[in-house]
Amino acid sequence: MNQQSYYRWWQRAGLCYQRDQLYFAGRRVQDLADQFGTPSFVYSASRVQENLVRLHTALSAANLAGQYSLQYAMKANRFAPLLTFLKQTGLCGIDACSPGEVEHAVSCGFTPNDISFTASSLSTQDLKVLARYEGIFMDCDSLHAIHCWGKLKPRTKIGLRVNPAMGIGRAANDRLHYAGDVTTKFGIYQEQFLDALAIAQSYGLQVSKIHFHTGCGYLTPQLEQLERIIAHCFWFVEKAGQVECVNIGGGLGVPHVASDEPLALDQWATILHRQFAARGLHVEIEPGDYIVKDAGLLLLGKTFVEKKQNTVFVGVDAGFNIGPEPAYYNLPFQPVPFRYEAAPCSMMDVVGNINEALDVWYAQAWLPDLTEQHHLALINAGAYSSAMASNHCMRGQFKEFLLF
Amino acid sequence: MNQQSYYRWWQRAGLCYQRDQLYFAGRRVQDLADQFGTPSFVYSASRVQENLVRLHTALSAANLAGQYSLQYAMKANRFAPLLTFLKQTGLCGIDACSPGEVEHAVSCGFTPNDISFTASSLSTQDLKVLARYEGIFMDCDSLHAIHCWGKLKPRTKIGLRVNPAMGIGRAANDRLHYAGDVTTKFGIYQEQFLDALAIAQSYGLQVSKIHFHTGCGYLTPQLEQLERIIAHCFWFVEKAGQVECVNIGGGLGVPHVASDEPLALDQWATILHRQFAARGLHVEIEPGDYIVKDAGLLLLGKTFVEKKQNTVFVGVDAGFNIGPEPAYYNLPFQPVPFRYEAAPCSMMDVVGNINEALDVWYAQAWLPDLTEQHHLALINAGAYSSAMASNHCMRGQFKEFLLF
Repeated sequence: MNQQSYYRWWQRAGLCYQRDQLYFAGRRVQDLADQFGTPSFVYSASRVQENLVRLHTALSAANLAGQYSLQYAMKANRFAPLLTFLKQTGLCGIDACSPGEVEHAVSCGFTPNDISFTASSLSTQDLKVLARYEGIFMDCDSLHAIHCWGKLKPRTKIGLRVNPAMGIGRAANDRLHYAGDVTTKFGIYQEQFLDALAIAQSYGLQVSKIHFHTGCGYLTPQLEQLERIIAHCFWFVEKAGQVECVNIGGGLGVPHVASDEPLALDQWATILHRQFAARGLHVEIEPGDYIVKDAGLLLLGKTFVEKKQNTVFVGVDAGFNIGPEPAYYNLPFQPVPFRYEAAPCSMMDVVGNINEALDVWYAQAWLPDLTEQHHLALINAGAYSSAMASNHCMRGQFKEFLLF
Repeated sequence: MNQQSYYRWWQRAGLCYQRDQLYFAGRRVQDLADQFGTPSFVYSASRVQENLVRLHTALSAANLAGQYSLQYAMKANRFAPLLTFLKQTGLCGIDACSPGEVEHAVSCGFTPNDISFTASSLSTQDLKVLARYEGIFMDCDSLHAIHCWGKLKPRTKIGLRVNPAMGIGRAANDRLHYAGDVTTKFGIYQEQFLDALAIAQSYGLQVSKIHFHTGCGYLTPQLEQLERIIAHCFWFVEKAGQVECVNIGGGLGVPHVASDEPLALDQWATILHRQFAARGLHVEIEPGDYIVKDAGLLLLGKTFVEKKQNTVFVGVDAGFNIGPEPAYYNLPFQPVPFRYEAAPCSMMDVVGNINEALDVWYAQAWLPDLTEQHHLALINAGAYSSAMASNHCMRGQFKEFLLF
């Protein structure tokens, strides 16, 4: 990636340089950092809404109106003001995966009817708490879960999470594979599916939904794979008999580097129409990343710039413990300066303040001379960052702000 | 690994089966789980003390008495009762890496004189807070840090953290490499060392310590490497001139699987004597894992047992977010049952309750029929578990107990 492409791919109306200054959500980012201090996550409400509207528009354009629903995967970012904002837009429900998430979503204004629930390894106590939320829709992930839920809520509708034993996802990221060659804990495999249906029936449960989450972060090149997996899942739909809805999980990717093209939503929606709506099936989608990832910036203070051997290091005042994706999942958060004068840049490694070799935010960032600059922003920090933050090395302090 | 070795290598007086029941720190583990609930971390004070005493004994036996100090790397586990216990033993000081850690150590009873401080990417504000703790010993990690500390604390003694550009560590774990072929953010490299000394001198700082942390988790087979790296570091000691003390970081490994042999402490201590004490140098050691890792158990509730394709899954009521080592660092926490009757075991995968493919505690554990058992314990969970815990998926709840 050269300097030009490093600075071109991510700029948009709500996040761009204007007269050399970085602006986000209509604010000069320098003013935000001066006011809030660092490290701070800032989230753009209007970008979140744009992302949701873009999904709705693509789905409607593909003639899916009335035949789909969007459930925001709240594990991506559960910042309470953000959840309440989402509720108020009326543009999505919630995908929750723990009793704590259900309680939190309800505390932010969602009702149990807005929530579909999919998780694995639920305890008896978890299930009892969930059963208190009348209206929540449960996707059972194992035969065991069907038994437990059947006892608590007989004669209700449920979903079954199935595992098509086929995976999709960004190549070379085996840390994000839910399904594929290796047997995983997720879902019910084909060979046990008839048993699952029999257990459901024994409690009078109606299997009205089939859920299959097949991977993470797919972009346009992976759509063909997605369609192949979807086709494979009709076996489950047909065996179940009374299915009204199919949930294809989340997984819609966002670009992380200049060479990533945004997901072609029209192609994606056309697949959903062809596979589901055309057969009278409602389709449920659980985006997380797609809604919030590019709506978040992480504002950091520069601590030092120093050359060590052949590498220039830029230190910042927070580490991978408050944003684990770059370190743990190899998904980069590109650093960008608050001021960019199209001056010649050079390559620098942006590193955090944790005593661990993993704590590299970005290797080989194209950055200008930072002598007179005291901050950096990391883009794409809106998902799986604060939500997965730890207090490792007692460096867990950060602030979060929802910007309207 | 066969069933026999799976159950043999980790048993010791304070953690073993007695009449088929697992005992830890003199308690029946079933009683602990019944009382505390799950997930709970339990730590054995006497095992922590044993680990410290073993180190002291080995160092004394190698004629190092009076010429070394142990600084516990508190980032491994900062549970307050554990820190206060450590203070009271008088067997170690503290290695801290953030202002928050310094404040916390002091809140638990340590004095600034007990604390040596080594970190990277410190902010100006960090350094100001640290300077308030008179007596803390600062190891500077960059030229920038020497400048900053020199301004705040001129004419004091400091350490310099150097990077010998040589790595040591468990093979195939590139996530834990601090030093080696790739230039890292850690320490001052040889080519800038004379500059570093000049900067120190300009503030009247006396470089009385050289710090080099060369890796993590080394066991006996890596001792030869360790000695080679140590030898390499004398270049720094000689150039600095007035060095009184050398800090070799932490890195002492503990066995994680049956095939790991415990570190031969006598060989290790002999190296330290030969390299340092024999030359009149004090040696500082910063163990973390070695002190607390095998002193901790994580008690978990079983949620389900179910075969999926050819794999039997045992679900438990907590996920990798409260103990990231297995998922992120490939360092297994072996699961063991509360009751073990030497009955035939079979292989099972122990998985958590987080909606992520990474959330596997242990693949291919040898476990007995668990129909009548409701819990599992994970061994080696005393370090970098609770300390790195996150509330991912709002599954961050756990308890901790120090057992005397």
